[in-house]
Amino acid sequence: MNPGRCAACRYLRRRCPPDCIFSPYFPPNNPQRFVSIHRIYGASNVAKLLQQLPSHLRTQAADSLYLEAQYRMEDPVYGCVGLISLLQQQIHDVERQLAMTQAEIAFRARHPQAVESNLLNNVGNPSFSNQASSWFM
Amino acid sequence: MNPGRCAACRYLRRRCPPDCIFSPYFPPNNPQRFVSIHRIYGASNVAKLLQQLPSHLRTQAADSLYLEAQYRMEDPVYGCVGLISLLQQQIHDVERQLAMTQAEIAFRARHPQAVESNLLNNVGNPSFSNQASSWFM
Repeated sequence: MNPGRCAACRYLRRRCPPDCIFSPYFPPNNPQRFVSIHRIYGASNVAKLLQQLPSHLRTQAADSLYLEAQYRMEDPVYGCVGLISLLQQQIHDVERQLAMTQAEIAFRARHPQAVESNLLNNVGNPSFSNQASSWFM
Repeated sequence: MNPGRCAACRYLRRRCPPDCIFSPYFPPNNPQRFVSIHRIYGASNVAKLLQQLPSHLRTQAADSLYLEAQYRMEDPVYGCVGLISLLQQQIHDVERQLAMTQAEIAFRARHPQAVESNLLNNVGNPSFSNQASSWFM
């Protein structure tokens, strides 16, 4: 075994040439990184993708391909599209919460007499937020 | 040309067998869908991925693979990982804005005398929000 071979050339059982396209991004001490992307994309597709990029962008491309491959192995049905849906839902929820909170401020500004001390003490209390939100919806 | 062949079999110039793994998910009227995933993953990797899934989940898997392939073709460096970073940043921004707005409500509750009408009229005004946020940070 040649200890200088990169993880890709070791896995593919081939000589690691000096200009190996995989070598800078798949070091021999992290074999799993290449195994993952090989399983999802295939070695030749990854090589093609890296070759078409300028060399200063290849590390980021190898990293993102590895991440996507990991997501796909964890969730073979949705891959990282599942995470994208989850994040979009999370943004929707936080934006809705923000709109409700801003509406609460606007309501208090228009109705200062309704803002009694016991009401104010409930700021941040979920049951109060639910009650307050019903005023605006 | 056999008009019954799926987009994958047409592209691969082969006979489309009755049990073709691609046929239900790559109809002949949308050839680009197969071209995209073939370019990024390769036909055999997509076939393997679909075959390992129960048939009722294969449509979702083909859809998510197609989406990921589209992202990768649009952004060969980051693919859909670029979108994930963007969405995470967006969540961070909205959560920060929400925390500031909630702190604003709490401040007003503790200092009702500071809540003057001209101040209240500025709710939603970005310069007011910046001023208010400086009280809490």
